[in-house]
Amino acid sequence: MELEKLYQLFEKHQKQILEDYFTFLRFQSISSEPKFSKQTLAAASWVKDYLIEAGLDVQMWETSDFPVVFATWLNAPSDKPTVMLYGHYDVQPVDPLELWESPPFEPTVRDGEVYARGAQDNKGQCFYVISALRTILKEEGSLPVNVKLCIEGGEEIGSPGLSGILKDKKAELQADHVLIVDVGLHDMDSPAVTIGVRGLVAMTLEVQGSLTDLHSGSHGGIVYNPNHALIQILDSLRDSSGKILVPEFYDDVRKVAPETKEKLSFDFQAEQYEAAFGAKPTGGELSLSPLESGWLRPTLEINGLGGGYSGEGFKTVIPAKAIAKISCRLVPDQDPEDIGNKIKSFIQQNTPEGVTSTLTIHPGTGKAVRTRPDSEIAQASAKAFSEVFDKPCSYILEGASIPVTPELTKASGGSVLLIGYGLPGDQIHAPNEHFGLERFKKGFVTIGRILTILSE
Amino acid sequence: MELEKLYQLFEKHQKQILEDYFTFLRFQSISSEPKFSKQTLAAASWVKDYLIEAGLDVQMWETSDFPVVFATWLNAPSDKPTVMLYGHYDVQPVDPLELWESPPFEPTVRDGEVYARGAQDNKGQCFYVISALRTILKEEGSLPVNVKLCIEGGEEIGSPGLSGILKDKKAELQADHVLIVDVGLHDMDSPAVTIGVRGLVAMTLEVQGSLTDLHSGSHGGIVYNPNHALIQILDSLRDSSGKILVPEFYDDVRKVAPETKEKLSFDFQAEQYEAAFGAKPTGGELSLSPLESGWLRPTLEINGLGGGYSGEGFKTVIPAKAIAKISCRLVPDQDPEDIGNKIKSFIQQNTPEGVTSTLTIHPGTGKAVRTRPDSEIAQASAKAFSEVFDKPCSYILEGASIPVTPELTKASGGSVLLIGYGLPGDQIHAPNEHFGLERFKKGFVTIGRILTILSE
Repeated sequence: MELEKLYQLFEKHQKQILEDYFTFLRFQSISSEPKFSKQTLAAASWVKDYLIEAGLDVQMWETSDFPVVFATWLNAPSDKPTVMLYGHYDVQPVDPLELWESPPFEPTVRDGEVYARGAQDNKGQCFYVISALRTILKEEGSLPVNVKLCIEGGEEIGSPGLSGILKDKKAELQADHVLIVDVGLHDMDSPAVTIGVRGLVAMTLEVQGSLTDLHSGSHGGIVYNPNHALIQILDSLRDSSGKILVPEFYDDVRKVAPETKEKLSFDFQAEQYEAAFGAKPTGGELSLSPLESGWLRPTLEINGLGGGYSGEGFKTVIPAKAIAKISCRLVPDQDPEDIGNKIKSFIQQNTPEGVTSTLTIHPGTGKAVRTRPDSEIAQASAKAFSEVFDKPCSYILEGASIPVTPELTKASGGSVLLIGYGLPGDQIHAPNEHFGLERFKKGFVTIGRILTILSE
Repeated sequence: MELEKLYQLFEKHQKQILEDYFTFLRFQSISSEPKFSKQTLAAASWVKDYLIEAGLDVQMWETSDFPVVFATWLNAPSDKPTVMLYGHYDVQPVDPLELWESPPFEPTVRDGEVYARGAQDNKGQCFYVISALRTILKEEGSLPVNVKLCIEGGEEIGSPGLSGILKDKKAELQADHVLIVDVGLHDMDSPAVTIGVRGLVAMTLEVQGSLTDLHSGSHGGIVYNPNHALIQILDSLRDSSGKILVPEFYDDVRKVAPETKEKLSFDFQAEQYEAAFGAKPTGGELSLSPLESGWLRPTLEINGLGGGYSGEGFKTVIPAKAIAKISCRLVPDQDPEDIGNKIKSFIQQNTPEGVTSTLTIHPGTGKAVRTRPDSEIAQASAKAFSEVFDKPCSYILEGASIPVTPELTKASGGSVLLIGYGLPGDQIHAPNEHFGLERFKKGFVTIGRILTILSE
């Protein structure tokens, strides 16, 4: 199907598509918070019904967390390839709620952007995929290639459920190409496809001192304050140049192939970044440019700190316990468990006398992915993006992780590419997440074009 | 009045005294939390009525926070001295509420200990003072010496209100001796009076990065994580030997007079401490014993840490802001404002590029106090404690702060001593605060004896 035709199709069905998109956004499908389980299951069930009505064969795969909606349309001629498209119906938590300008589960359009939790990540991107399939099937009665859809509900908790069933579902998951529709572009002037994501390992560090909170006057200078121990430990993990000091941390980092590196565009507009986020891009290793650091190097970030009293006013307390949430973004060929264990043993050795420390590695770790820019799926997708933008498409990487990507790709036996219409300012995982209606339409059209090009 | 007689008096009126003590404890007089203002004012009013009924002249002094209940009984013969007794009716916050075994404002007796917020600090100690005065006046019609009572409602927020009116009330506050009844003993085998407390300056440090929280995958290695900046700044404040690295921090620390040092008992039972609090006393400067560190040296403690997500599960966020609550306990002759400013400028210089830091010094700072062990009030009080325990009384210091002490003493023109029946395990400022009924009785008797000895 040609570009023009796809735009016409979208416009014809636009009203219903957006109505359904907003319905999808209203489910409070926060996978990490048990009190939202029912809503998360309801979102899965709604996706299932939507795909059945579209004419796909749908299975619900039970997992250790939320079900995977697995749908297929396999009626293409025998010489056509099979494409598996991946998305997720779960979303991040919404706190701090008071910073949202409109309720996170009541989609609101302002200046052409839809504001809601999941508006982009990933309900928005997932929905232009499935609404494109449904609309094409409705109008044409068929798709250009065989399609499999793998839509999970545990991405925001690291996909432990889907990971756990991949081995059992190998036959069903066979595909020539895998498209992870969960990433984005630098800006709307720069069409791009993503040839890699970083891996992830997330950890909780607990430092325990006394049995209960103590008075900082009577006990200050006597007991070892867990807050102090925590900051000492955390500060020992990195030096001031941004280098991670955990022994052997960088040992397995794979060198980037020169032919891959020369295809990548490391252009970075520091002023634009500062204008958008209110902060300079000074967080990486001193010797590297922002995108080298954000794409090709592992990180160790402290995602959370908690210990004692940090509210209004003051409480002169020495807390019994202090906590840090730590995560590492990983690059090929770092192993998440191995990295977690290296950090664990380094922390054990650097815990001061008088406190104890415990590092727990969270489930849902994931390896990094880096794929070949010359694969058929990369070439077809780049062509589709070029057409939509009417300019050459570049190859980029993404610093974030979609932990299940490497295992899902392996189970499929095919090659993988990541695409999407996210933008850096979409506030995913933060208050006031949003996604543009114009981008939604382009996403719809791009999916149609990729399937068409792959069938040629 | 003799010891035996005071015990008889207490026992005769015990029922009513304890009933009134429990009524006092039920007021939720948390001075630091605006929502408890009404309850804090109600506690003040209740104390006023109690003292009027006791036969004292009572004034309510309005301040910038809560009123000071100032009461006098000045009918002693002209050759008798005037003693001012200090206490406070406000208490610390109660969170984490879930760790309380019985509700913090519903006093509950278990094994002879009264459990409630303020059971010891300071309602329990304040109440054995005022119930002793009321009971002696009721039975005898007079007190052995002139008495002034200064009972404030802002101690737990650093006494800004009382501090602000001291100059205006200099005439009313004139006294020969000042007794601060807000400290304690090492254990119930060791009678002691306290010849000094440390000063206090409390600060909030805020580190701001981006405008909003960011995704730690997409932005990790690009933006400077405020949590990292915070821990780097905090870790730069102290070295691993416990020494504070802020330039000039120790410059004004007064040498301890040898004659004072030799009167002090530095006995410290490390095993007992560990058994009571579940932690070794490893928090001080490495070269010093626990009590040298806790009494004679300043501290810099991190009382609170907050930044990003530290709850259950995980959120892969780079927060926009990270916070630390910091306090220093000070020794003579350190000036709280001066120390706060030194820390502020050190932090400014050590803030990494890409984030901004703001240090706010809280109101309610206080200097340290160290008094002469040979003063009349110290000698009389030590004698009273010796009698009650039937063994020699020693001289100790207290690491905690009663910030208003130096200014109150100065305003009185008299000399000061600190006494009390607190014990290290009372859990003041923590869940399950408690105070012993036996100690309450001893406090009552000790007050009676001190006034009697001073009149002789």
